Amino acid sequence: MSKVIAINAGSSSLKFQLLDMPEEDVLSKGVFERIGLESPTFTIEFGDNEITKTLTIKDHAEAVDTLLHSLLEHGIIQSYDEIEGIGHRVVHGGEKFSDSALITEEVIKDLREVSELAPLHNPANIVGIKAFHEKLPNVPAVAVFDTAFHQTMPESSYLYSLPYDYYKDYGIRKYGFHGTSHKYVTEKAAESLGRPIDQLRLISCHLGNGASICAVEGGKSIDTSMGFTPLAGVTMGTRSGDIDPALIPYIMEKTGKTAEEVTNILNKKSGLLGLTGLSSDLRDIMEAAQGGNHRAELGLEVFAAHIHKYIGSYAAKMSGVDAIIFTAGIGENSAPVRARVLNGLEFMGVYWDPMLNEVGKKTSMISYPHSPVKVMVIPTNEEVMIARDTVRLSHI
Amino acid sequence: MSKVIAINAGSSSLKFQLLDMPEEDVLSKGVFERIGLESPTFTIEFGDNEITKTLTIKDHAEAVDTLLHSLLEHGIIQSYDEIEGIGHRVVHGGEKFSDSALITEEVIKDLREVSELAPLHNPANIVGIKAFHEKLPNVPAVAVFDTAFHQTMPESSYLYSLPYDYYKDYGIRKYGFHGTSHKYVTEKAAESLGRPIDQLRLISCHLGNGASICAVEGGKSIDTSMGFTPLAGVTMGTRSGDIDPALIPYIMEKTGKTAEEVTNILNKKSGLLGLTGLSSDLRDIMEAAQGGNHRAELGLEVFAAHIHKYIGSYAAKMSGVDAIIFTAGIGENSAPVRARVLNGLEFMGVYWDPMLNEVGKKTSMISYPHSPVKVMVIPTNEEVMIARDTVRLSHI
Repeated sequence: MSKVIAINAGSSSLKFQLLDMPEEDVLSKGVFERIGLESPTFTIEFGDNEITKTLTIKDHAEAVDTLLHSLLEHGIIQSYDEIEGIGHRVVHGGEKFSDSALITEEVIKDLREVSELAPLHNPANIVGIKAFHEKLPNVPAVAVFDTAFHQTMPESSYLYSLPYDYYKDYGIRKYGFHGTSHKYVTEKAAESLGRPIDQLRLISCHLGNGASICAVEGGKSIDTSMGFTPLAGVTMGTRSGDIDPALIPYIMEKTGKTAEEVTNILNKKSGLLGLTGLSSDLRDIMEAAQGGNHRAELGLEVFAAHIHKYIGSYAAKMSGVDAIIFTAGIGENSAPVRARVLNGLEFMGVYWDPMLNEVGKKTSMISYPHSPVKVMVIPTNEEVMIARDTVRLSHI
Repeated sequence: MSKVIAINAGSSSLKFQLLDMPEEDVLSKGVFERIGLESPTFTIEFGDNEITKTLTIKDHAEAVDTLLHSLLEHGIIQSYDEIEGIGHRVVHGGEKFSDSALITEEVIKDLREVSELAPLHNPANIVGIKAFHEKLPNVPAVAVFDTAFHQTMPESSYLYSLPYDYYKDYGIRKYGFHGTSHKYVTEKAAESLGRPIDQLRLISCHLGNGASICAVEGGKSIDTSMGFTPLAGVTMGTRSGDIDPALIPYIMEKTGKTAEEVTNILNKKSGLLGLTGLSSDLRDIMEAAQGGNHRAELGLEVFAAHIHKYIGSYAAKMSGVDAIIFTAGIGENSAPVRARVLNGLEFMGVYWDPMLNEVGKKTSMISYPHSPVKVMVIPTNEEVMIARDTVRLSHI
């Protein structure tokens, strides 16, 4: 039995989970928010306790200090020596990383090189890695990439129809994201179905504030809706998803904004928020739609229609599909969204049970027993994937 | 019996067809190229004759003059009075035009307003309209729009997930193009199938140097792959089709180009040309691929895969499909592309006959008789559609 800590460091946040492996029991979890900003908070859960404090935390190193002290203080661990591995979520692994990696000096160098592709995320991930390394220099650390699972895509899926040199010179291609989640839920689906994953064609719908759809054939990602960045694909909370690229210069001309500013609007002011003018949160939109708000209803329709169309296109890509999986905040919890997405897929063998869909929680099958295509709700668990890879690669 | 002339005016070109209506017989056709540039050419066909001349033609008015004189000179018409209607192809009708329109002062004013949405095309179309109006002021003229057929799309199809004000203030939405062609081939398909179009779900694949896919339900366009501009959708000869919009600022930063310049590259240096580095012409690419050129093979694969995926997504959108139609240069003539597109669609009821596909020319069915989804090759004929609408709206 060994304790592993799974870390997700953002520019001003740090989420953690302490897991007992290989049992995958969560001993404690929590989050630091507003690190280095005004009134940072620290929340930690263990057993039946949940404690939130406002502290002075000027940087990630201080957050790590506070975290480790708290684990001791609350008796969750008796000594730092109990922590045998640290797994770090890293957003972008570029083409360098098609699997998680034991962190070395060389890996850090590679991460820095790849940072150009994810300037908002990778640097924060590296800060998290450094902070833990200073405090626990002898504990093996592993980087687990959002992009790695998608490195199996064939070039006909990952290449854009752009001048080929853009790929060679600037690394412009589809990378895809949410890979850890797509991998987790598709493995879980195969397990639930009792069938070997290498014989399955699966479509995974990770629907949270960010959302992506992934075609998984024989356990390998062969296509996904996000692209060079997490902006592409289906409509999201605040992201536009796919749009005519010629709109960027048009919006620039009309609004007098720079390309950067327009891209920022596409990332932060578009999607469901832009369409509805109300909220990026699906629950708010659902409520407004029920109250008769036309644009809220429109937002729901557009969101579901995008996912529905991606399912059709990925079924075509794999010449059929064995199971469709819903995961993440919306995928796991919104029966009405699942219903809208699944409506009208009978032509390709999807027969789902409205009753099962209504009650679907945790891992559950919501298709009829006779449905050729199974439909499943599977809660995602990226932390467990991070902990598993940490154990595997640090040979704990 | 009345003669109608169908016109497609570009910035330096003018194509025409003279048709006998309602028989739809082509009496003559031809094209002016390089109008106002060095060594303009004029080609005219009639009966078994084809004549090409190099002339001095400084503008569209002179081209119209030359055209009308030639029709007389070659005895195709005896008098200008025989021309009873002129139909003009106009690229963009914005939201103003959901049908073709008899051209009035008011319509010209509307066309100018809409020109902002198609700055490369509409002004040239208007020049063509003016040139004919000067020469034949009493002949009714009709504008036939590439966008009009798609005005039936529901707002959940045509709205982008952008701030809603962009739609209201700047007309930013999906318009779609190739509407005249999609309308023609889907009507023809219904006729061939002997079924009322309002009971059919059709997917039309217009595959030429420009390419778009259209979902036609009950005779109405409900979705299409091109967008605000003809850049969006599937890979084309030189156009990228859909890409992650965040690539535009990234390419700008990497290459030091402006947004306009990058968009120009997406329109003119991308697509099959960019991917293969060889040609925008599918025939060249096919030849190179047969010779073992890897990137040519890749280009074919990407092109077919994009169309294949759109077919899946539109089948999902319509909860199934009754027939898939191939039209335009590539769609009508490339059996290998059709084969790649159709491969692996059995899961949704598409069973096609490789032998029929090989020989498929003119209007023909290439699916097996027992296939629930029919597959058809239908040569498009935008000129006939223009002539029909000219007759209908000018009450000839």
